[in-house]
Amino acid sequence: MLIDGKNYQSIWIDENKRDVVKVIDQQKLPFFFEIKELSSVEDVYNAIKDMTVRGAPLIGAAGAFGMYLATLEITAHTNIQSHLRNAAGYLISCRPTAVNLSWAVNRVMERLSSFSGRESLSETALSCALEICDLEKENCRKVGENGLRLISEISKKKDGLPVNILTHCNAGWLACIDFGTATAPVYLAREKGIPVHVWVDETRPLNQGSRLTAWELGKAGVPYTIITDNAGGHLMQKGMVDIVFAGCDRATRKGDVANKIGTYLKALAAFDNNIPFYALLPSSSIDFSIIDGKIEIAIEERDPEEVRSVTGYSDGSVRKVRICPDDAAAGNWGFDITPARLITGLITEKGICKAEEQSIKELFSEKME
Amino acid sequence: MLIDGKNYQSIWIDENKRDVVKVIDQQKLPFFFEIKELSSVEDVYNAIKDMTVRGAPLIGAAGAFGMYLATLEITAHTNIQSHLRNAAGYLISCRPTAVNLSWAVNRVMERLSSFSGRESLSETALSCALEICDLEKENCRKVGENGLRLISEISKKKDGLPVNILTHCNAGWLACIDFGTATAPVYLAREKGIPVHVWVDETRPLNQGSRLTAWELGKAGVPYTIITDNAGGHLMQKGMVDIVFAGCDRATRKGDVANKIGTYLKALAAFDNNIPFYALLPSSSIDFSIIDGKIEIAIEERDPEEVRSVTGYSDGSVRKVRICPDDAAAGNWGFDITPARLITGLITEKGICKAEEQSIKELFSEKME
Repeated sequence: MLIDGKNYQSIWIDENKRDVVKVIDQQKLPFFFEIKELSSVEDVYNAIKDMTVRGAPLIGAAGAFGMYLATLEITAHTNIQSHLRNAAGYLISCRPTAVNLSWAVNRVMERLSSFSGRESLSETALSCALEICDLEKENCRKVGENGLRLISEISKKKDGLPVNILTHCNAGWLACIDFGTATAPVYLAREKGIPVHVWVDETRPLNQGSRLTAWELGKAGVPYTIITDNAGGHLMQKGMVDIVFAGCDRATRKGDVANKIGTYLKALAAFDNNIPFYALLPSSSIDFSIIDGKIEIAIEERDPEEVRSVTGYSDGSVRKVRICPDDAAAGNWGFDITPARLITGLITEKGICKAEEQSIKELFSEKME
Repeated sequence: MLIDGKNYQSIWIDENKRDVVKVIDQQKLPFFFEIKELSSVEDVYNAIKDMTVRGAPLIGAAGAFGMYLATLEITAHTNIQSHLRNAAGYLISCRPTAVNLSWAVNRVMERLSSFSGRESLSETALSCALEICDLEKENCRKVGENGLRLISEISKKKDGLPVNILTHCNAGWLACIDFGTATAPVYLAREKGIPVHVWVDETRPLNQGSRLTAWELGKAGVPYTIITDNAGGHLMQKGMVDIVFAGCDRATRKGDVANKIGTYLKALAAFDNNIPFYALLPSSSIDFSIIDGKIEIAIEERDPEEVRSVTGYSDGSVRKVRICPDDAAAGNWGFDITPARLITGLITEKGICKAEEQSIKELFSEKME
């Protein structure tokens, strides 16, 4: 995406300095735009853990680059197989909910299995990681094209008024290397001159909506309004939302969707008000091995301190303020499950399907075995 | 309620200084416990507007005391009738959603209509305001007793495990002069040794949950856990919530409930998971003149700055941090409507009824005319 005239992805390798991975520091946005260099498996682990990089497709790509950095750590004394296995396990363990992380790391591991020697392993891992980036970018672009059809259809009925899209968290290009999932159709609509406006859920506790989605949309010139996570239901009751676009951290083969905590509440409200609710995802986010999201998807629990406080900007720096009594207990679940019955459809790179096994199978029969 | 051994209401008059109204400053809690003095109609208006005092029953009481202060502003040159009418209109205009404000101000106005002269007007207004406080306290106590029966019933099935109550915003004693509505049964359960645990929604944008409800529960020794507004649906899916207790700013004669923005989303989740959802309210919060909440209740829109920032504690002082791009647009609706069909029942001072006209009429036939 263009940021002040310069083209960025949310993760990349510099041609001139191929032993580090560069990422946009998503903890600092929108207050500071900073590039961070990751030069070891541990750097990648920490960046995923502390959400310097976040978003299902991006943490997949980061995991793949982490495997590349693991190959650079090989010395003459390294037991290569165990070193790579350990690195893969370590990276995958970092966050449990999004399936993209294990999908991407395992993809690099498979590719490496037919090579040996530091140099050929490194070349293979790097080219696999870059391939994953290209694949996810291309898939997100197609998700955008498929989602755009829905926006166009709604727009035709709105007589020039903007199509109001509600989104939760950040499923934008920052989360997805480029284009985004939930935002991809919005950017395309903007390019094509279809009037759109986005309701941005702030998305506590880490405010990926008010910090990241708002920043992305602003840079792309898309009109938006930040709302609290509490407000979406009211807007839907009042007819102020035309469609809901959510991201996805893991979908089951029957169409249940794990996404950022609070997504389920918006799906309930959309269903109650007869508003279409779509999850947008590349197929790397579908876990074809599982059926029931509520039972089979592990929900990450994070540090309660994220709930006890809010990080924001004041007087020239990024600060944390406590929003509760000093000794208050807090709980911090990162995701929830939206059952398939509440989802109008899944927008994927191969097209739009219903959140049902048969319909998913029509798009991805080869993966359904 | 006892705070560190001393008994407080959230609004009162000092015996020794009867020309000011004292309130606990709810903007500063839980970081600082400060008493604020209100000595004019304008002081009361501002305190309600900026949420130094908030909560439906409390702003009713504050409005009544505001009318008392209005009588103290009468001089020899005052056109008394127009002065009082203006004061009443001014106070009622301050916040549109809770019906208690107009209910209480109009109650004082009616009482004043048969008196004249500054002294007798002041005495009458003060005694009416104090009566309203006593009435609301007594009604909240009864709401507590009626709600306690529900907690006791659930507790019997839990084999000593705590009853998990989810609540949104602050419908505690701070909001209600004393006892609270949603919290009143919880305090009684605690007194009676019934194990309870409260999930406290933080309640953005002003965090009345994480700041006020958490503080109240902590001072009363009730175990609680703060969660983001996004988390309740997940907890309900996981069987971690036994019952939802919400407050109420205005109920219709058919049982629709206006309450803090986000309440509707929790009601949807409770309904979807077959968890009982109750609104707790003194009958001063029922507007017997209206039927359809979505159409007839005005939803307050507040300053978007409350959404663009978060106020909390850092380094010894209360600070505001911005959580979005500098130029971001935000929207700030204060309440939403929970339709009666999602509400298991209303817990009032006269008992528990269904959220249906006939059932409400059985408790309040005299007001239903």
